[in-house]
Amino acid sequence: MNLTGELLIGQQAVKGSRDPIVAINPATGERLPTEFNGGTAEDVSRACELAGSAFDTYRESSLEARASFLETIADEIEAIGDALIERAVAESGLPQGRIQGERGRTCGQLRLFAKTVRAGEWLGVRVDPALPDRQPMPRVDLRQRHIALGPVAVFGASNFPLAFSVAGGDTASALAAGCPVVVKAHPAHPGTCELVGRAVQAAVKQCGLPEGVFSMLHDSSFEVGQALVADPRIKAGGFTGSRKGGLALLDIAQRRPEPIPFYAEMSSINPVFLMPAALKARGKALGEAFVGSLNMGAGQFCTNPGLVIAIESPDLDAFVDAAAQAVEASAAQTMLTPGIHDAYDHGVSALAANAKVREVARGQQGDGPNQCQSGLFVAAGEDVIADESLQAEIFGASSLIVACRDAAEVKRVAEALEGQLTATLQMDDGDLEAARTLLPILERKAGRIMANGWPTGVEVCHAMVHGGPFPATSDARSTSVGTAAILRFLRPVCYQDLPDALLPEAVRESNPLKLRRLLDGERES
Amino acid sequence: MNLTGELLIGQQAVKGSRDPIVAINPATGERLPTEFNGGTAEDVSRACELAGSAFDTYRESSLEARASFLETIADEIEAIGDALIERAVAESGLPQGRIQGERGRTCGQLRLFAKTVRAGEWLGVRVDPALPDRQPMPRVDLRQRHIALGPVAVFGASNFPLAFSVAGGDTASALAAGCPVVVKAHPAHPGTCELVGRAVQAAVKQCGLPEGVFSMLHDSSFEVGQALVADPRIKAGGFTGSRKGGLALLDIAQRRPEPIPFYAEMSSINPVFLMPAALKARGKALGEAFVGSLNMGAGQFCTNPGLVIAIESPDLDAFVDAAAQAVEASAAQTMLTPGIHDAYDHGVSALAANAKVREVARGQQGDGPNQCQSGLFVAAGEDVIADESLQAEIFGASSLIVACRDAAEVKRVAEALEGQLTATLQMDDGDLEAARTLLPILERKAGRIMANGWPTGVEVCHAMVHGGPFPATSDARSTSVGTAAILRFLRPVCYQDLPDALLPEAVRESNPLKLRRLLDGERES
Repeated sequence: MNLTGELLIGQQAVKGSRDPIVAINPATGERLPTEFNGGTAEDVSRACELAGSAFDTYRESSLEARASFLETIADEIEAIGDALIERAVAESGLPQGRIQGERGRTCGQLRLFAKTVRAGEWLGVRVDPALPDRQPMPRVDLRQRHIALGPVAVFGASNFPLAFSVAGGDTASALAAGCPVVVKAHPAHPGTCELVGRAVQAAVKQCGLPEGVFSMLHDSSFEVGQALVADPRIKAGGFTGSRKGGLALLDIAQRRPEPIPFYAEMSSINPVFLMPAALKARGKALGEAFVGSLNMGAGQFCTNPGLVIAIESPDLDAFVDAAAQAVEASAAQTMLTPGIHDAYDHGVSALAANAKVREVARGQQGDGPNQCQSGLFVAAGEDVIADESLQAEIFGASSLIVACRDAAEVKRVAEALEGQLTATLQMDDGDLEAARTLLPILERKAGRIMANGWPTGVEVCHAMVHGGPFPATSDARSTSVGTAAILRFLRPVCYQDLPDALLPEAVRESNPLKLRRLLDGERES
Repeated sequence: MNLTGELLIGQQAVKGSRDPIVAINPATGERLPTEFNGGTAEDVSRACELAGSAFDTYRESSLEARASFLETIADEIEAIGDALIERAVAESGLPQGRIQGERGRTCGQLRLFAKTVRAGEWLGVRVDPALPDRQPMPRVDLRQRHIALGPVAVFGASNFPLAFSVAGGDTASALAAGCPVVVKAHPAHPGTCELVGRAVQAAVKQCGLPEGVFSMLHDSSFEVGQALVADPRIKAGGFTGSRKGGLALLDIAQRRPEPIPFYAEMSSINPVFLMPAALKARGKALGEAFVGSLNMGAGQFCTNPGLVIAIESPDLDAFVDAAAQAVEASAAQTMLTPGIHDAYDHGVSALAANAKVREVARGQQGDGPNQCQSGLFVAAGEDVIADESLQAEIFGASSLIVACRDAAEVKRVAEALEGQLTATLQMDDGDLEAARTLLPILERKAGRIMANGWPTGVEVCHAMVHGGPFPATSDARSTSVGTAAILRFLRPVCYQDLPDALLPEAVRESNPLKLRRLLDGERES
């Protein structure tokens, strides 16, 4: 498939009129073929007009039609073949195996949402039948279902050019909910975006859906992104990226004449608590495994373990020594973009320059551009509590070990944490009571709490929460990974005494979708 | 029970240090006994400190303990007896029967939430068991439940001194979710607030809960309300009242260092569509019934029918004539406060002064203070589309009939509407096709759609949606009435590979709460 660098507006492909975006291979610094000209506010308006027009039809498409559409997108992405892998590798600097795995995850995710759509649990149907003889007043017939919010703006992430981008989790869950999607393509992987965008476009056509169900625009500056969130036809947004970018778009979403939900997944340092018994039993092994998680994908994961908390002891020293050795042996890895590499270097330098912080180890220097040289640092618990700059996310392979005087200080550090995507306990049986003391704090701080694993690696399933209190996300009530992500793009509507012929299928008396409804507050079996 | 005018902070009662609030009987203009001195930002801080301290204990109280607490509140409110009815009548000007009914609704609501807590559906438990043999990678064990957001700030409404006030829907649903509550008492009914607040305080003590589970503060200005929403220990807010007040508090909630969800139920004019066949068959009866809904509670309901939309015809004339006669025969009614009465008069005068609007009828003048003289007006569809001031909510018994040239104009008026709590279709069999055309628009505009009823009267049940797109509420994803209101104060947390001994009951392998979980995406039967 040849790239054209065009904007995809409904079924059209048109060249943008703003400055061209050119993708850079971060591993070599080379410019990759094709210029992707950015769109204008007018292009945004056209895409949103089409999305608005498509909404009522698309949201009432049958569950089967919508599920089949999601599966067709997955098929079309797979049909691109090696061209997609090659372009994504070139644009991201990520290894081929990783990108292949990510394609599997992306298509698997679309198919899981197809299954979720068919199951219909997300419709949230509640029925309270009329009670005409109730005293002192009869009860009317009331039926609730969830409907889609409206067209959704999606901002993909740089670090998952497939799974969190054009046809990633936000798009899949919004489409599953019945929302048309307008994507702002990520400028770090515009060719990957075009390939996937054209796959979605083809699926829309193949499934006979209104063209406005999907559009994708390049943005040379902030014009497209800002206009997109501000457009009155857009009713929600999904974003994965930096805190600064997320907050800027959140602000636009909240200041509109009609404010809208904006789900920004932003910043997390994913604290890992090394509990005493675990540390004693396996400090060295934990140190090595920790660095495996730290270095994964050059540390460019939202769930990278950026903070390790433990009580000072010889066991902690053993952990630190093992981790330091592993870090020193770490080969440099190519980062996603020059901008991310610069921010990483700046973050690590700032940490190293902090008088309260001791550098423990750095990884090997690389010899190409944009190389991530892993970093490991130590600070005292009281200093981390006192200096919030030590909690700033460094996107990349860098972590700060927090040495606490005692268990009480560990608790105080936990209480001082900002909101997180994850919190991890490395614990053995002997740590159960101490872990029980920490758990309520961690529940308040994080969306996912794990034992004896590492935060990197996010399963796409039903029970996953990839979310958490601010600033991990802008809305702790949600997850951006897993089937519960669909709930972000729905709202309840209640139908009172409507004639059955006028009722949507989901709430009709005969229950044609065979849903297990909440009937008078009881779940149907 | 003697009123003391004190602030209720945990189990303490202390006199506020700000200017006294005095309740006025709106029917007579008389000052009612007791001065209620407002609290300070320091009082807010103390209440929030206690709420924060109580949170981890309260949110993990057993389902039975929490349900029993809600029932005890209801018992304590009933135990106040006639003193509560008398004070609420005096402070609100509402008839005794109405207040008695509202007490029943308030206590019934608390008991329904108790039942909801016990049922545990709100825990939203999802379990994806480990798959150790999965290829290419094993799956970890993942379990999701909902936990409470944290302490909630509640702002009661003037128009339901019991059901939407100190122990009203917001408080009941927040307590049910496991959130401590800090109430800002409404200055229009401070004595009613104290009586109910002391009932809740007594229930906290009787149930042996941490005192911070409930506090209630009077506010002489905006100091308490603003400090409450800004307090870092507060994690969500609930509000029912004016658009201006709701937006001001929403702004504080969003600009905090840690933004929080703020559920404001604000403004709605509840359009009623008179479909041609229904209008032909029963225009006169509809006109009379409509005015019954319009006048209920002097029109002081969020769901008051403020807009009636129909195609011009002799049948519409018959409706208008009947409605006009009924309005002219309407006795004046006392409004809740001088401020509300002034705003009503101002709103009606502005409407009457609009050159595009024709006054059809006014009700009888009253001879006491704060009398609502019902108003009925007519305007053309195109003028309502062009002039958004005609959509401004007039809180009180006033309604605008929108005469449209044809069905297409009816649709355009519907599309031009802001978000609403309700939309009503008066329809007969012959109107089915026309109603089907309107339905998608109404679904986008309103939280509840009804046929052949009137929007006033909101059933407290499972399927109810008392919510809707902005500006009806600040968050269309929610309802403030009915058991689904509990969902506003929850967030999902995922537990990965935690030892069973560390897991909360709701997600333990043995399922001790006997919940019907989502197991691998399938609902357990």
